Amino acid sequence: MIDTFLRPDAPVSPKAEATRSAIIETAEQLFRTLGYQKTTVADIARALHMSPANVYRFFPSKTAINEAIAARLLSGFGAMIWSMARRPDSAEARIRGLFKLLQQQTIALFFNEKKMHDMVEVALRENWDVIEPHVRSVDTAFRHVIMDGQTEGVFARCDPDQAARLVHATTVLFTHPTLIQQKCSEEDLPALADAMAEFVLQALRNKN
Amino acid sequence: MIDTFLRPDAPVSPKAEATRSAIIETAEQLFRTLGYQKTTVADIARALHMSPANVYRFFPSKTAINEAIAARLLSGFGAMIWSMARRPDSAEARIRGLFKLLQQQTIALFFNEKKMHDMVEVALRENWDVIEPHVRSVDTAFRHVIMDGQTEGVFARCDPDQAARLVHATTVLFTHPTLIQQKCSEEDLPALADAMAEFVLQALRNKN
Repeated sequence: MIDTFLRPDAPVSPKAEATRSAIIETAEQLFRTLGYQKTTVADIARALHMSPANVYRFFPSKTAINEAIAARLLSGFGAMIWSMARRPDSAEARIRGLFKLLQQQTIALFFNEKKMHDMVEVALRENWDVIEPHVRSVDTAFRHVIMDGQTEGVFARCDPDQAARLVHATTVLFTHPTLIQQKCSEEDLPALADAMAEFVLQALRNKN
Repeated sequence: MIDTFLRPDAPVSPKAEATRSAIIETAEQLFRTLGYQKTTVADIARALHMSPANVYRFFPSKTAINEAIAARLLSGFGAMIWSMARRPDSAEARIRGLFKLLQQQTIALFFNEKKMHDMVEVALRENWDVIEPHVRSVDTAFRHVIMDGQTEGVFARCDPDQAARLVHATTVLFTHPTLIQQKCSEEDLPALADAMAEFVLQALRNKN
């Protein structure tokens, strides 16, 4: 029975999909209040008036639930990042906007959603599967803007993949959940993000 | 009696200085083999054939010993960094050299001195007092090179303090003890350091 649910090619009924969504919703609420480590599958099942065995029919392990919640959070971040990357503004304005947004996302999570922040920090430390696709998606958003800037003639011609990875890498000090709590970070992170955006734009600009 | 030793203005006899050095030497050897967390003041005292009380006459706490060992390690790193910053090479060559050196220091610590690496990681997480002066010293080394590059006319005129902090910040992904173990870092850290040095040089260069 469990095998049927875990087979990725098994047809998913609307009812099964609804139950899966309800589990994620409930788990996320518990993660936000109790923290992801203290929330057990039994807690999630109890809140949904179902048995733990039933939760396990949809998620093979607590780890799978953790990854699903982290994926949902990061996918929300990714949507905002792509929305900024696709704005009808100049490439320079969008680079500045992306730096500001990335910095604000990290700070907002830290101050308003500390328990979710802690989960993302562990996800990074333990290299959860959801991290890599998110990082690559932000790389690609930068690549999109850099290529637009090259088309505009504002940015110099260069390998846009490489440039995007480097530009993204310069944001780490004000976007990494671990680093923003450490002394090696500037205290004024919004100012650092703004200054770094200008610095990066100097590297990207066409010198001719 | 202990108070006399802790007073910073108390005269330090050559014999006291020698004992202090011996404690640091021995503690460092134990840290490198046992790890700093598993090494006790009793271990250090035993290896020196002295009483723990005598060790405490020189260091008020285990924390003070930890900080002294970390300070010595970082001061060795700092000396290498300043030696690179003062080389009789062009400013561009020294920026490249500093990026390579910073990356190599972190990787060498991780692979050859894992227990010292772990201590530095905790020092960063817990904001030990020794971290801030080291970070500022590396900033100042970059500032030194940037100002030389401005004098050469190769780098554009800009606030050298600000530029130094930003240049240093771009190295975090391949120099931070926590990050070099995470998936968000490129796997090929030497290549990332080289590419980032070239990117930063593009930002620093005089466009006229």
